[in-house]
Amino acid sequence: MTFEYQRLFDFAEGVFRAMGCPAEDARQATETLLSADLRGVDSHGVARLSGYVRLWEAQRINAAPRIGVVHETPSTAVVDGDAGLGLVVAPHAMRLAIEKARVAGTGWVAVRNSNHFGIAGYHAMLALPHDMIGIALTNASPLVAPTYSLERLLGTNPISVAIPAGEQPPFVLDMATTTAAQGKMEILERKGLPAPAGWIQDKDGQPSSNPTETRNGGALVPLGGETGSHKGYGLGATVDILSAVLSGANYGPWVPPFVAFLQPPADPVGQGIGHFFGVMRVDAFRPAAEFKAHMDKWIETFRHAKAVSGQQVLIPGDPERRMTEERLTHGIPLLQKVVDDLQTVGQKFGVTL
Amino acid sequence: MTFEYQRLFDFAEGVFRAMGCPAEDARQATETLLSADLRGVDSHGVARLSGYVRLWEAQRINAAPRIGVVHETPSTAVVDGDAGLGLVVAPHAMRLAIEKARVAGTGWVAVRNSNHFGIAGYHAMLALPHDMIGIALTNASPLVAPTYSLERLLGTNPISVAIPAGEQPPFVLDMATTTAAQGKMEILERKGLPAPAGWIQDKDGQPSSNPTETRNGGALVPLGGETGSHKGYGLGATVDILSAVLSGANYGPWVPPFVAFLQPPADPVGQGIGHFFGVMRVDAFRPAAEFKAHMDKWIETFRHAKAVSGQQVLIPGDPERRMTEERLTHGIPLLQKVVDDLQTVGQKFGVTL
Repeated sequence: MTFEYQRLFDFAEGVFRAMGCPAEDARQATETLLSADLRGVDSHGVARLSGYVRLWEAQRINAAPRIGVVHETPSTAVVDGDAGLGLVVAPHAMRLAIEKARVAGTGWVAVRNSNHFGIAGYHAMLALPHDMIGIALTNASPLVAPTYSLERLLGTNPISVAIPAGEQPPFVLDMATTTAAQGKMEILERKGLPAPAGWIQDKDGQPSSNPTETRNGGALVPLGGETGSHKGYGLGATVDILSAVLSGANYGPWVPPFVAFLQPPADPVGQGIGHFFGVMRVDAFRPAAEFKAHMDKWIETFRHAKAVSGQQVLIPGDPERRMTEERLTHGIPLLQKVVDDLQTVGQKFGVTL
Repeated sequence: MTFEYQRLFDFAEGVFRAMGCPAEDARQATETLLSADLRGVDSHGVARLSGYVRLWEAQRINAAPRIGVVHETPSTAVVDGDAGLGLVVAPHAMRLAIEKARVAGTGWVAVRNSNHFGIAGYHAMLALPHDMIGIALTNASPLVAPTYSLERLLGTNPISVAIPAGEQPPFVLDMATTTAAQGKMEILERKGLPAPAGWIQDKDGQPSSNPTETRNGGALVPLGGETGSHKGYGLGATVDILSAVLSGANYGPWVPPFVAFLQPPADPVGQGIGHFFGVMRVDAFRPAAEFKAHMDKWIETFRHAKAVSGQQVLIPGDPERRMTEERLTHGIPLLQKVVDDLQTVGQKFGVTL
């Protein structure tokens, strides 16, 4: 089944309003959430709406948070999200980073006491209209085993970097620090396909091809797979430390789970989950027009490189941009089970899909 | 053959002095260069001294550069390295970033018109004694093919992040954005071993096990290998853009080769190679003692995680720190061919090894 963007927007906004989000927060939460559906990251979009609702019902999400600045310097700040929706807290923190960059050249904001923020790329891209480079990181529930570990100590901890160009569309990297994100495992499971080598390990730390291995004590493998996972582990660890140790959020195995049926650890080391945002004004380094002309040349050079037969070299962000155009025109496809789930949520709040 | 650190130090410093480096620059260049030998990154240490000498002979390295600031804001600067040794230009830029962080909370310095800067980890670690987090990136000669590309458009473009702890030694990530760095290929070649899957491709973009494939038009594969190389490509691309498009250095296929027998491209898009440095004062976010206590807890948790039989979970920087202790005590082993090469250089300048 396929739904127009605006129809899903009105529905999700109605649900957030019914949860008690102020009007502007409900609009922002919806825009953040649906950016995942538009960009083709179906695992992080409207399919997760009921997950946010259940966390709110469990009183682990505050629908009307008082987001505050705990500490700041000319180019930094720590933001306390007051247990609000990460979908709202994160853009708030990015706007603060943009304001700091306007004055100091760059802005760096660590966030504690937040929740799942949707896709990292949405937040990084908020910098683009200002001719600024945006960076967004977050930690997440532990699903990933560091190299040699049998324990899951890291989330899929994504890194997003958005860089403006001139005539060309922007460069937008948005990647989990695992070889494959958990959403890819769910797709394999639905299709009954095995996981490729280097994606997942079993409870004894041995390579596995079973995409549901995390339910049996297994773990996702950091980016780099069998001969390079120490690099993905190092990147995921860096994301965890900048997001949570710097801000005062929970890190490593203490990151609270996104699902309401699992309890957060009883001995927290911080508050909520953590994010980290960076914004750099391009013209804090060189004139924006000059930078953007070189970005165009960079992008054209890479895009037109000689490629393997039948393929083309892509620029980070290309597939997601094409998907957005496609889905704004032809609608957003949802699995029947997602539609059923949304209808259940809608009935609870008196909002019609 | 094994050499005491101080003996190699005196020798390399003598060579840099004979090239015309001012005393302080010769000392700095030597310290930067030998940090690679101490940390076990033999490909980037004293074995490369003759390479720097040949670039100087070819007038592509300026032994007495006037390093200058081209543009700055409270938290940013662009530095022109005046074609100096990256070994000297990079610490100069890091010190500027540290000064900016002192005042603005963070400092971000992009560098153009530089040369190979040794190991990224050395520069990132300069922030540690100041209770600051250090970040060091650089682009490098094109050896890496983006996903689907037959052309080599990126260097092994490393990322280093150094984070201070309290009782525990610091967290020091220092990684190429390829599955394996070029130095690993050279080791395989010397030992007559094949390259593991996902490390290298042939001139038609097909997976290869020949570690010398780059000499036949092949290329190194970005981190992530056969099912995830788009992520390593995205990271390497980000390093290239921050290091060179932001600073005004050469990027992508225009990065000048490190070897003197290959000419730089005739149509440069910038000056020299580029680096990017970041420094964040820990207490621009939260009190340093609090941060460091949590870093200790983070490190202890990961180090003591249940591990695969016979293995231990390592913290980034552990192997290099142990290697440094070992080599400061027992000396630095050099291959005979490296010793011969150093002796040839020494004779040219009248410096005895």
